[in-house]
Amino acid sequence: MKLIIAIIQPTKLEAVKLALSKVEVYRLTVMDVQGFGRQKGFTEVYRGHEFTVNLLRKIELQIAVNEDFVEPTINAVIDAARSGPEGAIGDGKIFILPLDDCIRIRTGERGPEAI
Amino acid sequence: MKLIIAIIQPTKLEAVKLALSKVEVYRLTVMDVQGFGRQKGFTEVYRGHEFTVNLLRKIELQIAVNEDFVEPTINAVIDAARSGPEGAIGDGKIFILPLDDCIRIRTGERGPEAI
Amino acid sequence: MKLIIAIIQPTKLEAVKLALSKVEVYRLTVMDVQGFGRQKGFTEVYRGHEFTVNLLRKIELQIAVNEDFVEPTINAVIDAARSGPEGAIGDGKIFILPLDDCIRIRTGERGPEAI
Ligand SMILES: Nc1ncnc2c1ncn2[C@@H]1O[C@H](COP(=O)(O)OP(=O)(O)OP(=O)(O)O)[C@@H](O)[C@H]1O
Ligand SMILES: Nc1ncnc2c1ncn2[C@@H]1O[C@H](COP(=O)(O)OP(=O)(O)OP(=O)(O)O)[C@@H](O)[C@H]1O
Ligand SMILES: Nc1ncnc2c1ncn2[C@@H]1O[C@H](COP(=O)(O)OP(=O)(O)OP(=O)(O)O)[C@@H](O)[C@H]1O
Ligand SMILES: [Mg+2]
Ligand SMILES: [Mg+2]
Ligand SMILES: [Mg+2]
Repeated sequence: MKLIIAIIQPTKLEAVKLALSKVEVYRLTVMDVQGFGRQKGFTEVYRGHEFTVNLLRKIELQIAVNEDFVEPTINAVIDAARSGPEGAIGDGKIFILPLDDCIRIRTGERGPEAI
Repeated sequence: MKLIIAIIQPTKLEAVKLALSKVEVYRLTVMDVQGFGRQKGFTEVYRGHEFTVNLLRKIELQIAVNEDFVEPTINAVIDAARSGPEGAIGDGKIFILPLDDCIRIRTGERGPEAI
Repeated sequence: MKLIIAIIQPTKLEAVKLALSKVEVYRLTVMDVQGFGRQKGFTEVYRGHEFTVNLLRKIELQIAVNEDFVEPTINAVIDAARSGPEGAIGDGKIFILPLDDCIRIRTGERGPEAI
């Protein structure tokens, strides 16, 4: 089992949910976050290097999946969250974390069938 | 050490906090999230299958614990977050993630005593 | 690769971002959370012990880094988030989680170069 964390542009949320449902991933948790990167925003100078720090609204998805669903989930998120064939700066990032266990509160089921 | 992530119904937060304190788990982080499942909400048809996607307010708890506290914490969350003895659809999910290290910022303590 | 989760006082966010940029950590995700601890707040009595539960606004940072950046990142967060040399109760906590993989959505790059 893995916990997939994806940070995407808010405008891509509906497309990502649809793409996930097409690979039979129906359960996910979504939260509003702020992303910092280097693209746009205020500029700072440090040790003679100028760099740019920005704060932008993003959406974070948390998706717990069984092993067979890891690559389909990643591909669905990439396909739906990328801006056009080339992609655009700030399109987002996906993190894959190990997941030791999962429990469905209603039934007490544990492990892969509880995902 | 484990990081326990629990997604519960907002109405159950107070009961869950009380249940956690009874197993001597006093520290946790809470955030507002939106949950997607298959229970209620708008219906879509895909490849001839109709399925339902919903977006509901949930609460996410993040609770870092030492090994001896993992099962008591899980049981406390299940007991307090489940709707009645049978439970109800949407009662929530618990994820257990491995946690490599923990640091208390005030003291610089690391590892299990910093939890 | 590690996912570093830091929960800090909201007043320390700007200082922490600056400290991170000084160790060349420019990318992070930030969210508003509520922290529960034992310092201030309402008091409850349980089995004859009185204890105090509080709910306070905190900021959670999620920072994915390569191995060489783990200790510099931890030190930057501690230095900037601690209140004075002694620190103050509630200054925050850092969690280090294993991170299996990372993908840049724009390019499809994976692993350490996608961080
Ligand atoms: N290493 C990281 N740790 C934590 N969050 C990150 C990291 N990298 C990216 N993010 C989150 O993902 C969001 C989108 O990242 P972004 O797509 O800008 O990544 P990038 O590596 O800068 O790629 P690009 O060059 O395509 O912009 C960021 O605003 C931030 O919220
Ligand atoms: N696999 C998952 N990945 C990420 N979040 C999940 C996952 N499963 C559940 N959640 C989160 O937990 C919330 C509650 O889930 P829920 O209790 O509906 O789980 P379920 O597996 O559908 O069980 P039930 O059949 O009892 O409804 C969801 O709204 C979502 O936020
Ligand atoms: N074990 C934990 N699990 C989840 N979140 C935690 C945990 N410990 C601390 N936190 C989060 O970090 C915030 C700040 O924690 P805090 O600095 O009060 O830690 P502490 O261990 O009580 O140390 P101190 O004695 O310095 O107050 C909390 O409000 C909570 O959001
Ligand atoms: Mg970027
Ligand atoms: Mg459900
Ligand atoms: Mg404290």
